[in-house]
Amino acid sequence: MDTPLLDTPYTVIDRDRLLANLEVHRQRTKKQGIAYRPHAKTHKIPELAKLQLEHGAVGITLATIGEAEVFVDAGIPSIFLAYPLWLTANKAQRLAALSTRADITMGVDSVAGIQQAATTLGETTIGFLIEVDSGHHRSGCDPRAVEPLAAALAAHGLRCEGVFTYPGHSYHPGATTTASSDEVEALATATAVLESAGYPVTHRSGGSTPSLHSTKDSLTETRAGVYALGDAQQLELQTMEMSDIALSVVTTVVSARGHTAVVDAGSKIMGADKAAWATGHGRVLGHAEARIVAMSEHHATLVFPESGPQFAPGDILNVIPNHVCNAVNLVDIITVVSKQGPPEQWAVAARGKNS
Amino acid sequence: MDTPLLDTPYTVIDRDRLLANLEVHRQRTKKQGIAYRPHAKTHKIPELAKLQLEHGAVGITLATIGEAEVFVDAGIPSIFLAYPLWLTANKAQRLAALSTRADITMGVDSVAGIQQAATTLGETTIGFLIEVDSGHHRSGCDPRAVEPLAAALAAHGLRCEGVFTYPGHSYHPGATTTASSDEVEALATATAVLESAGYPVTHRSGGSTPSLHSTKDSLTETRAGVYALGDAQQLELQTMEMSDIALSVVTTVVSARGHTAVVDAGSKIMGADKAAWATGHGRVLGHAEARIVAMSEHHATLVFPESGPQFAPGDILNVIPNHVCNAVNLVDIITVVSKQGPPEQWAVAARGKNS
Repeated sequence: MDTPLLDTPYTVIDRDRLLANLEVHRQRTKKQGIAYRPHAKTHKIPELAKLQLEHGAVGITLATIGEAEVFVDAGIPSIFLAYPLWLTANKAQRLAALSTRADITMGVDSVAGIQQAATTLGETTIGFLIEVDSGHHRSGCDPRAVEPLAAALAAHGLRCEGVFTYPGHSYHPGATTTASSDEVEALATATAVLESAGYPVTHRSGGSTPSLHSTKDSLTETRAGVYALGDAQQLELQTMEMSDIALSVVTTVVSARGHTAVVDAGSKIMGADKAAWATGHGRVLGHAEARIVAMSEHHATLVFPESGPQFAPGDILNVIPNHVCNAVNLVDIITVVSKQGPPEQWAVAARGKNS
Repeated sequence: MDTPLLDTPYTVIDRDRLLANLEVHRQRTKKQGIAYRPHAKTHKIPELAKLQLEHGAVGITLATIGEAEVFVDAGIPSIFLAYPLWLTANKAQRLAALSTRADITMGVDSVAGIQQAATTLGETTIGFLIEVDSGHHRSGCDPRAVEPLAAALAAHGLRCEGVFTYPGHSYHPGATTTASSDEVEALATATAVLESAGYPVTHRSGGSTPSLHSTKDSLTETRAGVYALGDAQQLELQTMEMSDIALSVVTTVVSARGHTAVVDAGSKIMGADKAAWATGHGRVLGHAEARIVAMSEHHATLVFPESGPQFAPGDILNVIPNHVCNAVNLVDIITVVSKQGPPEQWAVAARGKNS
C-alpha cells in the first residue's frame, strides 16, 4: 500500500485474507469433528462475528457482560462468557436481561461464585460450565476437584453443561503440543469425575490458536479467536505465516538512520504486549526479517537486516502488532480493504466494554 | 474502598492526591527555575490539563495533531507537539487550522521533514524545535549535527525556537541521574553548535518524570507528564511513593487460592506494559509487597506475601497499572473521587487520537 487512505497511523483488516482464515478454520474443525465458538474478544466487531457464524461457528465466546450486551444488540444468538463472573446484583440483572434475548452460558470456578450467582440470579435459563485449570494457572479449579461445584450448581437448581479450560500456557515456543495434551487430560479428568458422580457432561470446551493444530476430538468445542486475524505472536510461535496476517497498522516513517526506521505507530495503537520470549515488539508486513526493537506510545523503531531495504521519512509501512486482541481494543474504527470492492469501515463496537 | 461505585473494573483518579502532586511539581520547578509544559498524553483529559495550567504550567505537550485538536477545542492556548511530524497535505491543513486558534510548536529531526513541512504548510506562524538524541536512541538527530536543520528552517522562513530531547533511557533502575546528565549535555552541545553558527536558542526543553529530581536549570522547560498521576513503573524506579499514586483500577476478586487472587482487570484496562526490569505487571494500592505476577486481557493474578492477607471472590481491590499513559488510553471515562465532594466523571477526550 503506497498511498494511505487516511492520516496515519490507522488499523486495517484485509478482508480477503480474513475470509480465507475463516474458511481454513471451518475446514479444520470439520475435519477434527468439533464445534467452534470463536472468542470474539479478539476482534470485538459484530460484522466479523457474523462472518464467523456464516462460516459455521455455533456462537461466540466473550469475557464480559458489557461485550455480550453489544453482540446481543447486534443479533448474535448464542454467547458463552468464558469467565468466572462474580455476579453482583447489578451484573446479575444485566446478565438476566440478556438471557431473555439470547442463549447465555457463563463460567464458574468456585462454590462461592456459584452461591453468589444463585443468590443474585434466582431462577434462570443461563447455563453454566465449570472452569478447570489445565496448566495455565490463572483461574479454574483443579480438574479432580470439580464435584463440589457440580453439586453446588445442582443444589441451587442451576444447569451444568460441562467443563471448560483455557490452555494459555500454549503461548510459549515449543509448548503448543504439550499444552494441547494438558488441555485434553484436564477436560477428560474433570469429565470422568463428574460422570462417575452422576453428572452428565455435554460440553468439553477448550482451545487457543497456538494449540489448534493439535486439538483432539475429545473436545466438543474450541474457542480459539486469534486465528481470524493473526498477529506477530503467532508468527513467533510459527502457528501462522506472514501470508495469513489479516490485520496491520498503516504507518509513516518519521525518522530514519541506515537500516533503522522510526514509524508513527506506538503502543497506543499497537498495544504494549511483549512476551518474555518474543523477539521484538511486533513485525513488519512483507519484511519477515525486520523486527520492532523498541516501542513507545507514538514511536516504533524498526530494524531491517543489513542486506535489507532502507527507508526515508514519508515512506509508508504496515506493521503487525504482537497481540491482535489488545491492538483492536485501542481503536474505535477499523478500515477494511479488499480486492473485491471499495474499503469499508467497521466499528469496534465492544471496545472498552470491560465490565 | 469497600463498595464500588460502578460495575468493576473501572478506572479512578483520586483528585486530592492529583492536586497534591500538581502542587509539588509547581514548587519543584519554581525552585529549579524552569518552566513546565506537561506531556498531556499521560492523561488526555482537558479538565486535568486546565488544573495543570492553574498550577503554573505554561502550556501542554502532545504527540499528535488529533490530540491537539481535542485540547484546542477545550481552550488550551499553547501546545508543543514534541514529535517529528511528517506533514502530508492533509495533516498540514489540520495543523494550520489549529495555529489560527492556539500557539503551536512542533518537532523536527531531519532536513527532509523540514522540507516537507515547508512545502505543505507554506507561510505559517507555527514554531519549530529541533529534536536531539540524548541517549534514548529513538528519534532526534545527533546534537552535534543540528546546524543543517537550523539552516533548512531559516532557508524556508520557518521559526526555530531551539532544541528539545526526551531522556527516555531514564526509565531504568539506577539510570535516572545519568539520563538527566545526558539530557543536559545533549541540549548544551546542540545549543553551542547553533549559537556559534549564529542561530539564537530560546528554548531548551527536556524532561521525564524519572529524571525530574535531578533536572538542572540549564533546561528552560520540562515536559514530564506521569508525575501528575503516578504508576507502578515510578514505584519500581523509586521516583514516586505509594502515597503519591493518584490513578488506579477498581477490581473484584473472581478467583482465589491461598495468598493468590485473580481480579477482573487485565491488559484491556491496565495496559500490557512490562519493562524487562519490572518486578511484575503492576501493583496493588495499599499493599506494597504484593505483585501482579501474570496478566491476560481480563485477568490479573495478584500474589501477596505469605505473611500478608488472603482474599476471597467478591473482595474489592485497587490495582495500579505499570504505565499510566497507556492505561488511561483504554477508557473513555474516568471516575474522579475526592474527600472534598461527590464523585465526578471526566471524559478521556483525546483517547485514541493517534493521527
